Amino acid sequence: MSELIVKKYGGTSVGSIERIESLADRLVKEIKQGQKPVVVVSAMSGETNRLIGLAEKIDPDYRGSAYDMLIASGEQVSISLLAIALQKRGVKAQPLLGFQLGIRTDSTFAKARIQSIDTDPIFDLVGKSVVPVVAGFQGVDEDDNITTLGRGGSDTTAVALAAAIQGRASCDCEIYTDVPAVFTADPRLVSKARELPSLSCEEMMEMAALGSKVLHIRCVEIAAKYGVKIHLRSTFEEREGTWILPDTPDLATASPATSKGSSTMNIQIEQPVVSAVTHDANTAVFKLFPVPTGPDFLARLFDTLAKKGVVVDIITQSETTEGQRLAFSVTKEDIPLSRQALKDFVPNSEHITLIENMAKISVVGVGMRNHPGVAARFFAVLAKTDVPIHLVTTSEIKISAVIEQGKLKEAAEALHSEFGLDKA
Amino acid sequence: MSELIVKKYGGTSVGSIERIESLADRLVKEIKQGQKPVVVVSAMSGETNRLIGLAEKIDPDYRGSAYDMLIASGEQVSISLLAIALQKRGVKAQPLLGFQLGIRTDSTFAKARIQSIDTDPIFDLVGKSVVPVVAGFQGVDEDDNITTLGRGGSDTTAVALAAAIQGRASCDCEIYTDVPAVFTADPRLVSKARELPSLSCEEMMEMAALGSKVLHIRCVEIAAKYGVKIHLRSTFEEREGTWILPDTPDLATASPATSKGSSTMNIQIEQPVVSAVTHDANTAVFKLFPVPTGPDFLARLFDTLAKKGVVVDIITQSETTEGQRLAFSVTKEDIPLSRQALKDFVPNSEHITLIENMAKISVVGVGMRNHPGVAARFFAVLAKTDVPIHLVTTSEIKISAVIEQGKLKEAAEALHSEFGLDKA
Repeated sequence: MSELIVKKYGGTSVGSIERIESLADRLVKEIKQGQKPVVVVSAMSGETNRLIGLAEKIDPDYRGSAYDMLIASGEQVSISLLAIALQKRGVKAQPLLGFQLGIRTDSTFAKARIQSIDTDPIFDLVGKSVVPVVAGFQGVDEDDNITTLGRGGSDTTAVALAAAIQGRASCDCEIYTDVPAVFTADPRLVSKARELPSLSCEEMMEMAALGSKVLHIRCVEIAAKYGVKIHLRSTFEEREGTWILPDTPDLATASPATSKGSSTMNIQIEQPVVSAVTHDANTAVFKLFPVPTGPDFLARLFDTLAKKGVVVDIITQSETTEGQRLAFSVTKEDIPLSRQALKDFVPNSEHITLIENMAKISVVGVGMRNHPGVAARFFAVLAKTDVPIHLVTTSEIKISAVIEQGKLKEAAEALHSEFGLDKA
Repeated sequence: MSELIVKKYGGTSVGSIERIESLADRLVKEIKQGQKPVVVVSAMSGETNRLIGLAEKIDPDYRGSAYDMLIASGEQVSISLLAIALQKRGVKAQPLLGFQLGIRTDSTFAKARIQSIDTDPIFDLVGKSVVPVVAGFQGVDEDDNITTLGRGGSDTTAVALAAAIQGRASCDCEIYTDVPAVFTADPRLVSKARELPSLSCEEMMEMAALGSKVLHIRCVEIAAKYGVKIHLRSTFEEREGTWILPDTPDLATASPATSKGSSTMNIQIEQPVVSAVTHDANTAVFKLFPVPTGPDFLARLFDTLAKKGVVVDIITQSETTEGQRLAFSVTKEDIPLSRQALKDFVPNSEHITLIENMAKISVVGVGMRNHPGVAARFFAVLAKTDVPIHLVTTSEIKISAVIEQGKLKEAAEALHSEFGLDKA
């Protein structure tokens, strides 16, 4: 057990007075067992959306300091209530807002990035046996404007806080969610999906980028950078979940893995080639042919898409004698905006093909680095199960293909089996 | 018109998105007419009670920093939304929380007192043509804990802010409520009650203390001390309401009175003896006889009552040969607590008489200072209308009597007529 432990609870864990009371019960029990928690809390579930709804009724397009101040009030309520519930149980607790903890961010409202955290208030409180209850999702910029961190912001607060604390005391980060662990694949899709006792930050980042919504990519990036160990686990069960660990060499001596049993180490010793199969069922592909050759056209096209806020995922391109052949994938929601942008670049609509109802399927694993031939096996499985591939992209530790949604389950089951993930 | 103007809006004025939009419309119109407003806003109506309800579900007895942080979130929401509505109309606006404005208070949670306000942010914003939208009701103590000011807190914020601004620029304070003005009596009680164009802070303080709920006594105290002119007026009508003016000598040259017409000055020239009849229908009287003589008994009794939170209003006492005769009034709500306290001091319950369903009726006016015989006229009216008096108290500018509730309307109408308040 680390000296301090950051424990982050999402909106569901504080979604009602009853939930807040039972969370307080659980924290009191753990404190009596010797834990020194630093608690980070999201807004009560539904509250942030309610506040966004109020703002959008006035002006759906407004973004700026007033918007961030508005939605940051949700966490102010939940930390106050949890602190009151802890005090009622005889545990001293102090709610802390972003400005009180000196969580400094840049001024990018609605998606600010943390620049520094002052841990003095944390150590002062812990030294006096007071439990700090920190508002997730918020900070202040250099002009003391309240800022918010965007999606997954409370996870980011928790990991950044653990990273800051580590300068003076060992500190792991527990993130409580409504799923009990990270799985080898989505259990709703792959019947033999299993819980992973641990995986690396790199793998978690790829999985997050590939559509696994368990943890936001930004908090995993911070964990990787500052060597924070994240323990992802269930709010509603007491058993262990999945450890997300900064880097492999450290693992054999890592205190959480070794002190908690051998499961984590075994995983690493076996060095599976692939750790998980992930998917994102929400994909569409645009194919353009023929379009003008040369990088200038590409630069202008993708700049226009970016300015409209379209996130382009996979891009493939090849030059032919009749012109450039281009394909890229976007999420379903971005189809209308993408169409608008394309209109100016490809006046002849016959040269644009939109393929809807696509899905991206991926395999992820740090083991892939040392195992050649993973791509070949990946394509062989898809060929054997008769799944046509529309786009492909690879990185050092993952391979992704865009396929038809109707083939997704079949492909996921086949890949999960092929890479040995079915067996525990 | 003063250079700057603090404009305070209560919960009803920002009670819904529609109300916030129409408030923004009104402010924009006034800004175009040349006003430089500093806006102070309460929480949306019902919101503070909703938040208190959440806290009380966990622990009805808890008071401390978490409670204040919780209920201060209501104003955070309303100022953000109003700022968004102003921006939408092309008016730059900046919501400001207590900590951002440096509203420093003591650490008496739930009823903190303002110690200082930093007006630099206000002048910076106004200099850049940005409208400051300030959260009422809240501040921070020296440890940066959020504090709240208790009942009427947003009015206090507004007047204190105007007082602070007056150091560098002239600044009146408009307080918008759901009543259009201060009346010579409650129009529900006295049919001929009229609106007062102006009255003095002293009179307003007496009226507040005597049960008129228009303005909280604390904000009038600040206005009197720092010479702030308060204009109390309706949120829903554009016409003038009642000016509450710091002190009489200043009045003839006071800018709001002279520039707005002669009504305010006339009132002063006429020097009415009584400005208003006020009442509080919520009173009970305890009569104790016989109890031990001497001040020691009184000191211990009222100390015990105070420690239980009972606010004792009028006290009368006389020594007789059989012992001390004592009577005091409390609000109806405090009857049970008062009974508890009395039990230890007066063991024989036959020596305690409780008279319920009483009311306090008062006449108030700075003119009473220079007009002897007001008390005589007061008692004569009550005698003529056959109203028995249970307790009496007087100050330099008011006379109060506790009478039966059933006689209240009759007494109020008679006093209103006797002191010339019926005619405009």
